[in-house]
Amino acid sequence: MTEPPPALPVLPGTLDDVLGFTFEHADADTARGSFEVVDRVRQPFGIVHGGAYAAMAETLASLATYSQVKDEGQIAVGQSNQTSFLRPVSQGTIRAEARRRHRGRTSWVWEVDFTDDQGRLCALTRVTMAVRAQPS
Amino acid sequence: MTEPPPALPVLPGTLDDVLGFTFEHADADTARGSFEVVDRVRQPFGIVHGGAYAAMAETLASLATYSQVKDEGQIAVGQSNQTSFLRPVSQGTIRAEARRRHRGRTSWVWEVDFTDDQGRLCALTRVTMAVRAQPS
Amino acid sequence: MTEPPPALPVLPGTLDDVLGFTFEHADADTARGSFEVVDRVRQPFGIVHGGAYAAMAETLASLATYSQVKDEGQIAVGQSNQTSFLRPVSQGTIRAEARRRHRGRTSWVWEVDFTDDQGRLCALTRVTMAVRAQPS
Amino acid sequence: MTEPPPALPVLPGTLDDVLGFTFEHADADTARGSFEVVDRVRQPFGIVHGGAYAAMAETLASLATYSQVKDEGQIAVGQSNQTSFLRPVSQGTIRAEARRRHRGRTSWVWEVDFTDDQGRLCALTRVTMAVRAQPS
Repeated sequence: MTEPPPALPVLPGTLDDVLGFTFEHADADTARGSFEVVDRVRQPFGIVHGGAYAAMAETLASLATYSQVKDEGQIAVGQSNQTSFLRPVSQGTIRAEARRRHRGRTSWVWEVDFTDDQGRLCALTRVTMAVRAQPS
Repeated sequence: MTEPPPALPVLPGTLDDVLGFTFEHADADTARGSFEVVDRVRQPFGIVHGGAYAAMAETLASLATYSQVKDEGQIAVGQSNQTSFLRPVSQGTIRAEARRRHRGRTSWVWEVDFTDDQGRLCALTRVTMAVRAQPS
Repeated sequence: MTEPPPALPVLPGTLDDVLGFTFEHADADTARGSFEVVDRVRQPFGIVHGGAYAAMAETLASLATYSQVKDEGQIAVGQSNQTSFLRPVSQGTIRAEARRRHRGRTSWVWEVDFTDDQGRLCALTRVTMAVRAQPS
Repeated sequence: MTEPPPALPVLPGTLDDVLGFTFEHADADTARGSFEVVDRVRQPFGIVHGGAYAAMAETLASLATYSQVKDEGQIAVGQSNQTSFLRPVSQGTIRAEARRRHRGRTSWVWEVDFTDDQGRLCALTRVTMAVRAQPS
């Protein structure tokens, strides 16, 4: 029997923490996370708030890009986030898989697929990260 | 001396509540809201998380569209959210102003401007809302 | 030796024709097309005009969606087109591969990858098509 | 009686020329152009092709940004183009008005409104331009 890999740390009190996000993996090519569908990620009609998908995608792309550029004295800053909502979800767990599509000198582009407990696609996000020199 | 208008109600425990969003106004043409820049809307480097802008825009467009179509037995569902991040903000209050750009039979389009305490533009969102018959 | 499949017809004089687009395939799941990098798809500095990518994606998504809904008396209308430009291309052939990501009752979503002669990713588009009853 | 200002030059044979685009103005804050609705900008059902809007917006943002950065040895390259289609148009003239929303060190953001002969909003585009050092 194998243990799941330990989750990446989340800074207490920040948005990722208050929305209950879990991040499982982030490297140069892919990143993965998930969140439980409970009230803190819902809008008033009981379905997942669109902002929850956008936020999860933003963090995955940021984590993964930053993990690759920080050793060169660079930072990664979100530049745009384009999310399409395909299916309302009212319970279960949302899983997010990010795939890097472009790695340029000054920008990286990620696409993120969101699926529900039945593996159905619920939302899609494209995130563009700007890569810049660390402010000195 | 005049009082500010009372804020629109926010359902306790939902995403809008846990991120500390306040909504001041929502009609057929405009909607307004704001949030304080504290940890619950920050990412780990201390600036406003991109997902906070996307979420606020999503709620404003939803609130305002729904307020206009509910009496006709219709609902409003977010279809896409395209946010551009223009300026990092680490403190103060973020104000959001939504303007309706299109009112169709089956979709409404809103554009939202976000400004900081100095009135500088920090982010832009375009939200498309799908309008559908209330499920019976 | 096998012949390539015949290209889908293009209506003379329309945008697809004047930009020299060729469409090779369109079904419920995928669509493919290409264009030669000559002046009619270039901007003044000699690289492919961003509008050429957006236009090709729009046509692929339209062709493929319409091919599936027309027998039910429905039409397909472009609702949004989000294109990211990743690499400037100044010569050769641009190939476009569209993949359907969502098939809903009232909207379909496609993602299109554009590659150059070396197979490098040059642009990405997400197209949302609205499906509606044929006007009577 | 006053003459209209002379149009900005369009390079013969390029996409802007074959689609019949006219550009009337481009400065640091605004840009304007138009095109006639004839077959070269139409799709097969006789309405304006979505790619025509995207292309016009791309050129306006490029022209205007480049006009401001070229004297500093910089170029402007399209990074993303997000167009929403609001109303089908089958004849007349499409007018485009671009407004700069952000002027950063490395990126500029423009929003473009498209209107028909009755002044009705037909499409909206947000264009992000990357500003880079001229390749030497």
